[in-house]
Amino acid sequence: MKWNRIVIDAMGGDHAPEEIVKGAAEACRKSDTIHCIFVGDELGVRSLLKKEKLRESRWEIVHAPEVIAMEDPPKDAVQGKPNASINVAARLLRDGYGEALVSAGSTGATLLACSNAIPRIGSIERAVLAAVLPAVRHKPADPGKTVMLDVGATLHGTVNQLVSFAIMGLHYARGVLGIENPRVGLLNIGEEETKGHSVLVDTHRALRRTPQVNFIGNVEGKDVLRGVADVIVTEGYTGNTVLKSLEGMAELTLQTGKQIWKRGILSKVGLVMLAPKLKKLKKRLDYSEYGGAPILGFQKLVIKAHGRSKAKAIMNAVLLAEKSIANNLVRHMEEAMREFYLGLFEHKPGESAS
Amino acid sequence: MKWNRIVIDAMGGDHAPEEIVKGAAEACRKSDTIHCIFVGDELGVRSLLKKEKLRESRWEIVHAPEVIAMEDPPKDAVQGKPNASINVAARLLRDGYGEALVSAGSTGATLLACSNAIPRIGSIERAVLAAVLPAVRHKPADPGKTVMLDVGATLHGTVNQLVSFAIMGLHYARGVLGIENPRVGLLNIGEEETKGHSVLVDTHRALRRTPQVNFIGNVEGKDVLRGVADVIVTEGYTGNTVLKSLEGMAELTLQTGKQIWKRGILSKVGLVMLAPKLKKLKKRLDYSEYGGAPILGFQKLVIKAHGRSKAKAIMNAVLLAEKSIANNLVRHMEEAMREFYLGLFEHKPGESAS
Repeated sequence: MKWNRIVIDAMGGDHAPEEIVKGAAEACRKSDTIHCIFVGDELGVRSLLKKEKLRESRWEIVHAPEVIAMEDPPKDAVQGKPNASINVAARLLRDGYGEALVSAGSTGATLLACSNAIPRIGSIERAVLAAVLPAVRHKPADPGKTVMLDVGATLHGTVNQLVSFAIMGLHYARGVLGIENPRVGLLNIGEEETKGHSVLVDTHRALRRTPQVNFIGNVEGKDVLRGVADVIVTEGYTGNTVLKSLEGMAELTLQTGKQIWKRGILSKVGLVMLAPKLKKLKKRLDYSEYGGAPILGFQKLVIKAHGRSKAKAIMNAVLLAEKSIANNLVRHMEEAMREFYLGLFEHKPGESAS
Repeated sequence: MKWNRIVIDAMGGDHAPEEIVKGAAEACRKSDTIHCIFVGDELGVRSLLKKEKLRESRWEIVHAPEVIAMEDPPKDAVQGKPNASINVAARLLRDGYGEALVSAGSTGATLLACSNAIPRIGSIERAVLAAVLPAVRHKPADPGKTVMLDVGATLHGTVNQLVSFAIMGLHYARGVLGIENPRVGLLNIGEEETKGHSVLVDTHRALRRTPQVNFIGNVEGKDVLRGVADVIVTEGYTGNTVLKSLEGMAELTLQTGKQIWKRGILSKVGLVMLAPKLKKLKKRLDYSEYGGAPILGFQKLVIKAHGRSKAKAIMNAVLLAEKSIANNLVRHMEEAMREFYLGLFEHKPGESAS
């Protein structure tokens, strides 16, 4: 049997290592082909694994004596702690010991440790962070998910970088989320192709001309959760700010629900009656259902789980990672990027350069 | 008695002129010092005013034979229809017939018509669009509102422009929303002052050094609705995208509520029990409570009401406009901008230029 070997940063995240090990073990119980390489405090992880009663062929542990905390400044921490779990994990990937990485540690440290160790897909200048958001389903067959990228690994981007976001995003949507022909939209302040600053105008034009991208044009902020596009391309500064705004609003909405819960017997009875529907809504707003944000552009897939991840979120992240390996996600992205760059040198008759 | 003369674009918006006239008349009944100058189809507006039984000293009508529709391309429409209501209204302001303008017409056309006619406050290069958002109240005395600007009149900005957003925003928060010492935050992707692209880093530093700005540092997307800042400064592209994302999410939340309403008797009973609290939540998410977005930077205040405004939203917009006149908002902004620019030429001992 071919194992899908997933490196797991056992020490990253608010609930590490307990919930990390628990979630990964849960994933192993769901899928027979996962092999976990835990990186972290060996004794601690071993005793946690004992409780999970997972067969020994399903896992190994690589000891890492240092830990990077969420609040550590990423640059200093990644440089100053070469034997931190995330650094060791990234080097394991570089050296071919695993095909994908899952970490719930600090986003900055994960990005930096991976950038230091793991080569990027040819022509990709910087890896990007994607977010998988809930999206309105207009009919039952709709995916109910939208990939938005970049959401914070970069600030601005060149036209070719933004096109590369589109290509990587659509392969993630296709290979991992199972959306056959993902619709790609460009986040902008209006639908007209002349909207936005010059990089956006030029990116709009470039996406129109990239045959492998099913480009539906500009989308606006109000469309982000509306399910009108499966992949939303944006510069990192805007993507990060929009993502965090939506997270903030989701949190407030859930908080308001809880406050209502606390006040008055009528409200309590009302909420109990609504419970099944509210649960559904909460599930749609809950990051742990989505298994984390993929970091795309490295020659190995990296899944950044939320810092607050508990076992369920980690389980989903590990299952996502396995799916990406099984579907050869990175190879597909690599081929698509090569095709895109070759296309830039082809001059088709009747097409002007402007 | 001194009238506060407000020019009202009677033809702009989805429900013009009926709801516009109705809302303005309602405002006149709430405040004795409002004098409305309606711009639009004279006969139509006159017959609507008749129904409102408003004393004749409270209003006049200036005929404008043309209308700009929401879907008209702003540039062509504003140039091609010199006698459109918004063009006539802007010229009336320029010529001193009124102190503020309320329009529910297209944002682009409103901005352009006003830019063509109304002089800007000295040193302001471009007028900006502000949005008043609901904010969490941490204690009962908290304002429950946050001003975010720019949300779409510009794309990017220079350091001095962003500082001018802060100054105009804080005077709006103080003079119109009644927040005594507004806390100003800079929207960015992290709290550290070195975060974001160079304009943001430099703006952070400039805001720290501007004595009239009570600068609390960077705020993130998740803080936008949290009431941590009373004024949030951002570039137009990001502000517009964040605002529209939040509007989209609010709409989806209300829609989900309505869908729950439709399904099942238990849910219906539950919702009836929750109704008073849900109504409160809905009110917090409802733009018509906020009376519209101020356009700041002109020598007259312009309030852009939502295109879908009905009478209540228009009434609130007219009352806001009056408050800004009564509080000498524009003069305060002008003085603050002068002070800021004079400050740039002062060298304080012990302070380096970098």
